[in-house]
Amino acid sequence: MFQFTLTARNNRARTGIFTTPHGNLLTPVFAPVGTQATVKTLTPEHLEEINATLVLSNTYHLYLRPGDELVRDMGGLHKFMGWHRPMLTDSGGFQVFSLAQTRKIDDDGVTFKSHIDGSTHRFTPEKGIAIQENLGADIIMAFDECSDPNDHEYSKIAMERTHRWAERSLKAQTRADQALFGIIQGGVQADLRIASAKFIASLDTPGIAIGGLSVGETKEEMHAMLDVVTPLLPENKPRYLMGVGTPEDLINGVARGVDIFDCVLPTRLARHHSAFAPEGRLNLMNATFTRDERPIDETCDCYACKTFTRAYIRHLIVAKELLAGTLISIHNLRALIRLMEQIRVYIADGTFESRVPELLGQWANNAKRNQPLRRGDTES
Amino acid sequence: MFQFTLTARNNRARTGIFTTPHGNLLTPVFAPVGTQATVKTLTPEHLEEINATLVLSNTYHLYLRPGDELVRDMGGLHKFMGWHRPMLTDSGGFQVFSLAQTRKIDDDGVTFKSHIDGSTHRFTPEKGIAIQENLGADIIMAFDECSDPNDHEYSKIAMERTHRWAERSLKAQTRADQALFGIIQGGVQADLRIASAKFIASLDTPGIAIGGLSVGETKEEMHAMLDVVTPLLPENKPRYLMGVGTPEDLINGVARGVDIFDCVLPTRLARHHSAFAPEGRLNLMNATFTRDERPIDETCDCYACKTFTRAYIRHLIVAKELLAGTLISIHNLRALIRLMEQIRVYIADGTFESRVPELLGQWANNAKRNQPLRRGDTES
Repeated sequence: MFQFTLTARNNRARTGIFTTPHGNLLTPVFAPVGTQATVKTLTPEHLEEINATLVLSNTYHLYLRPGDELVRDMGGLHKFMGWHRPMLTDSGGFQVFSLAQTRKIDDDGVTFKSHIDGSTHRFTPEKGIAIQENLGADIIMAFDECSDPNDHEYSKIAMERTHRWAERSLKAQTRADQALFGIIQGGVQADLRIASAKFIASLDTPGIAIGGLSVGETKEEMHAMLDVVTPLLPENKPRYLMGVGTPEDLINGVARGVDIFDCVLPTRLARHHSAFAPEGRLNLMNATFTRDERPIDETCDCYACKTFTRAYIRHLIVAKELLAGTLISIHNLRALIRLMEQIRVYIADGTFESRVPELLGQWANNAKRNQPLRRGDTES
Repeated sequence: MFQFTLTARNNRARTGIFTTPHGNLLTPVFAPVGTQATVKTLTPEHLEEINATLVLSNTYHLYLRPGDELVRDMGGLHKFMGWHRPMLTDSGGFQVFSLAQTRKIDDDGVTFKSHIDGSTHRFTPEKGIAIQENLGADIIMAFDECSDPNDHEYSKIAMERTHRWAERSLKAQTRADQALFGIIQGGVQADLRIASAKFIASLDTPGIAIGGLSVGETKEEMHAMLDVVTPLLPENKPRYLMGVGTPEDLINGVARGVDIFDCVLPTRLARHHSAFAPEGRLNLMNATFTRDERPIDETCDCYACKTFTRAYIRHLIVAKELLAGTLISIHNLRALIRLMEQIRVYIADGTFESRVPELLGQWANNAKRNQPLRRGDTES
């Protein structure tokens, strides 16, 4: 059911086609995040218009609300949220581990308290698969444990547990129409990442995820980990770098052989009035845009840029009109999806590798982070 | 430039075509309210999809923010907000008079304080026209004064001032591409309404507005006022009943010869999770909808009803996702626009008059008001 066909290569960067029950994914691909079964402020129509092809939703959040069994009974996540292209759910692991004060990990699983009402719950690898089978995404994740990336001892324990949990996750799977990915862990420890890449690659899965990055480590550390991991992975499986990232992370990730990305950045920035633009990230609430008749990005083909001026969007922000967030979300997501479309063209024509500095230069002014993004970040 | 052609009649109800610089309006028509140059949470694309043909925006709000001169410099309201079908702006009068504590009326105009920053401003008939010429809507209003409808003495003073201000508004108009309507006032006093109808009808305007209703009077009083007013109006001018109303108000208004309506009700209800449905207004946050697989209205052709279940919309509400307001707004507006489409068909085939009881019956359960709506209600 799941086939990954490489269509072009340019050094370590690759383009491919991943077949799923809801259509073919062209990779490299960037997935908007729809934590609670909705990409915030956007309709599925908006997502189709910007050519989004893959949407991520969060297992932890949907398990708590509205409940995975309800989603199953409503016909699954695709039908429930009106999105009929490929979907991905994460393992729930990271969100649970993020509840630092209220969770307890043992070898069998994790007991935690809901951030919504404080009620007690338990995730195990088997439970993680059962939930994701109820949700019904095309791509699902094995339950994993994320560690403090700089703590070698703990990273080793978490990695080994993640490996055992991956095996249990695979055994627990009953649906054949979902691609279950194992997750590579190991912090920023090269020896652990190598061991984890080899182990996860040895499992019979249609794809491989790289977890535990973009959690506070430096860019150099993230690149170093990708540099040791991706050469150990089979060519014929898509690689998913979880929760990453910024435009430059996407460019650097593709250059290191990554195929799938997701991140809350574009939509979160949008809700804080911040837009990707040729001259860098713009805070559109700024008075400098009061009479700016240009679109956010004159080169962009999105509805927001084809229809509205910066002056109008600033007016919406000042007047506290929610449409501002919708329009900037449309643009910011389209900007990253367009970047991926561009990258696919460059890989296909063999120029990507040589264009990396140019691409990084174009996005340099958008690279600044207002605050560190963490892989577990969700849109709730 | 502005022609109103009657195409069918059924007793006092009529269908017509009103030509404007941004296209022909089929009447009777219901206009969604876009107070601050946006119909809250919707894009112009959404409005086109539900076949909205006329949008109202509020002069008072746009004057204060972003400023009518800015809107003019950005190419006018249509271009600014990306809406290319007909638009209507109100006179600003009602909003100003609503600032009961901070405004002072004299024969020349009104001095008031901004609700945003307390700064002092002054509207006169001439200023009202100048602002609306800067905004550039297709249909604009003469400056008017709304009174306590039960106070005959004050209603007479306000009506006479409104008449003088209408004459001044007409004199002040410089643009030929905007249809300036005079406004009939007179509270719930039949003698005043008759006098006002005769006076406003005597002015050389392409249309006539009926103001000062739906401000707290009873339904019977509103109907009685329409019953004395509309027979005095020329057949060949569209009649606009300002700020009205509920579904039953639309049906009753059309039956009494009204052609144009606007109201915040559908979008305001939507933001409070309340949806028009065949069985009556539904509060979709209610737990009864947790697993309801039906759309809001199985007979509705809107995107929300064609795509999503009540269960999904309830999930969005509970999860505090803004998309809920967008989807219910789409549906509620479409419901009233569809009602008007239906009414136009019934007038054309001669069955409207006989179907009024049936139509009122269909909407009876949606008639309850959570709170009284006032004509001056805006969407800010």
